[in-house]
Amino acid sequence: MTAAVPPQHSEQEAREERLVQQVQASFDNAPDPRLKELLQALTRHLHAFIREVRLTEQEWETAIAFLRRCGDITTDTRQEFILLSDVLGLSMQTIGVNHPAEGDATEATVFGPFFVEDSPEVPLGGDIAQGASGEPCWVTGTVRGTDGLPIPGARLEVWEADDDGFYDVQYDDGRTAGRAHLFSDDDGRYRFWGVTPTPYPIPHDGPVGELLEAVGRSPMRAAHLHFMVTAPGYRRLVTHIFVEGDELLGSDAVFGVKDSLVQRFVRHPAGSPTPDGRQVGGPWSEVTFDIVLPPEGAGATA
Amino acid sequence: MTAAVPPQHSEQEAREERLVQQVQASFDNAPDPRLKELLQALTRHLHAFIREVRLTEQEWETAIAFLRRCGDITTDTRQEFILLSDVLGLSMQTIGVNHPAEGDATEATVFGPFFVEDSPEVPLGGDIAQGASGEPCWVTGTVRGTDGLPIPGARLEVWEADDDGFYDVQYDDGRTAGRAHLFSDDDGRYRFWGVTPTPYPIPHDGPVGELLEAVGRSPMRAAHLHFMVTAPGYRRLVTHIFVEGDELLGSDAVFGVKDSLVQRFVRHPAGSPTPDGRQVGGPWSEVTFDIVLPPEGAGATA
Repeated sequence: MTAAVPPQHSEQEAREERLVQQVQASFDNAPDPRLKELLQALTRHLHAFIREVRLTEQEWETAIAFLRRCGDITTDTRQEFILLSDVLGLSMQTIGVNHPAEGDATEATVFGPFFVEDSPEVPLGGDIAQGASGEPCWVTGTVRGTDGLPIPGARLEVWEADDDGFYDVQYDDGRTAGRAHLFSDDDGRYRFWGVTPTPYPIPHDGPVGELLEAVGRSPMRAAHLHFMVTAPGYRRLVTHIFVEGDELLGSDAVFGVKDSLVQRFVRHPAGSPTPDGRQVGGPWSEVTFDIVLPPEGAGATA
Repeated sequence: MTAAVPPQHSEQEAREERLVQQVQASFDNAPDPRLKELLQALTRHLHAFIREVRLTEQEWETAIAFLRRCGDITTDTRQEFILLSDVLGLSMQTIGVNHPAEGDATEATVFGPFFVEDSPEVPLGGDIAQGASGEPCWVTGTVRGTDGLPIPGARLEVWEADDDGFYDVQYDDGRTAGRAHLFSDDDGRYRFWGVTPTPYPIPHDGPVGELLEAVGRSPMRAAHLHFMVTAPGYRRLVTHIFVEGDELLGSDAVFGVKDSLVQRFVRHPAGSPTPDGRQVGGPWSEVTFDIVLPPEGAGATA
């Protein structure tokens, strides 16, 4: 897993190793021990990368120019560095490290760049679509702890793209749609209307999109619906549900799919009665997603 | 050198390892084998970093925001990503990998962000300062190969800051100063007037400067004069000379100092005759720097 180092250090090897030691030593006096640990480890791993692949100066220049172009395209609503982290699986690895396996707790997945603070609240059974286009989808489930007890009053933030693959923040008119929050009832149950998730590409008209194209990878994300669930005394959960049968489950651009998060969406033809009597004027779907939260601090490093 | 992995993989370890494998596999079909190698190795090293330090989500967010701010401050003349690479010693490691030890060849050091194409030519013995302020400095030496033979017609690009610590590209008025190129004579000898190098800080009013401050590191570079030397059939040399006795030699912000590049600058009081009879109207210095180039392709990976 590390760069092949010949058993006998040549003068060249010695020079390279000396530099790594020197850079690490430059952080020895950092007042914050965690910052020191992070920068010394980052130094060690990045130098190991350069030495292992024998990075050329032209490749280094390409990397610098790539990072600059990531910066150039980044705005408050277009975060190219998050996309870069996502397509290298770094976001997912960070999530995994901070949400270690814990009993039957629901698995976490990537946060993504489209969450927005201060979403509108909807009542139980309300419609989070708020004008986002797509096939209506009835989403229900329970929120409970790893002890099996229901969690009343858990806050569920839910957000999703419309069936053109766009989140509201990508609309031109600034309206809010396809996102809301609601609270579980006294039995930990929740229910709302959204739209059936459909696949869409991550923004791929920038340097990260070029990278994916250069390596023959698709920018498509498997269809999903975002959840962030919080309740006092429990670990925050950021996750998605995915759609059983979606052909993109095996090639999600950001490595967000976990088997345990793939759910069965049941399709109903136009005219089928809905659970709450709502007239949806066409086909609709429904899905159940039961959520399990571990206690706060369980196995977490954060 | 790698993350400590317990002998028995827990479910958590298995999840983390599986993700690394999955991301690496996503590059398996890259048409360019070198790009595949680079991205798979980068994936491996960055994931190892995250797993080793157990990066928190907040730290990940801080890193993303840091990269964004690097992008925000970057312009054609302010390259924050180069500075970041420099202060982590990554630029220096890349230089070292591409300029391996080769006989008595002159060591390379960082390129830095202040080189400009199309510098003016000066004749042998000419003045590269062209108005840059500072104590005049007479620089002489030879250019030869590792075979000991002089190299006539070698092109020497030289550039340096003025005694306020600024390069011409940092001036407001767009004039060229403190940079030029010249060619070695038939015996491989060269000579020119410049200014005695003085220490200066790397640009530290941005995120990289904040990083240095947070870890208690100085942004100062040891005083230096840049050289880039090219000659047909020889490996390109990018290097500096440093000033013997400079107290910053041990803490250069970008790790550019090599013992072999530290030179003795001899100071002469005002009124001392100069080698070429030039009237400099004050004290001046002189330094000798003999340059040795390996043949093209010698030990190079690039």
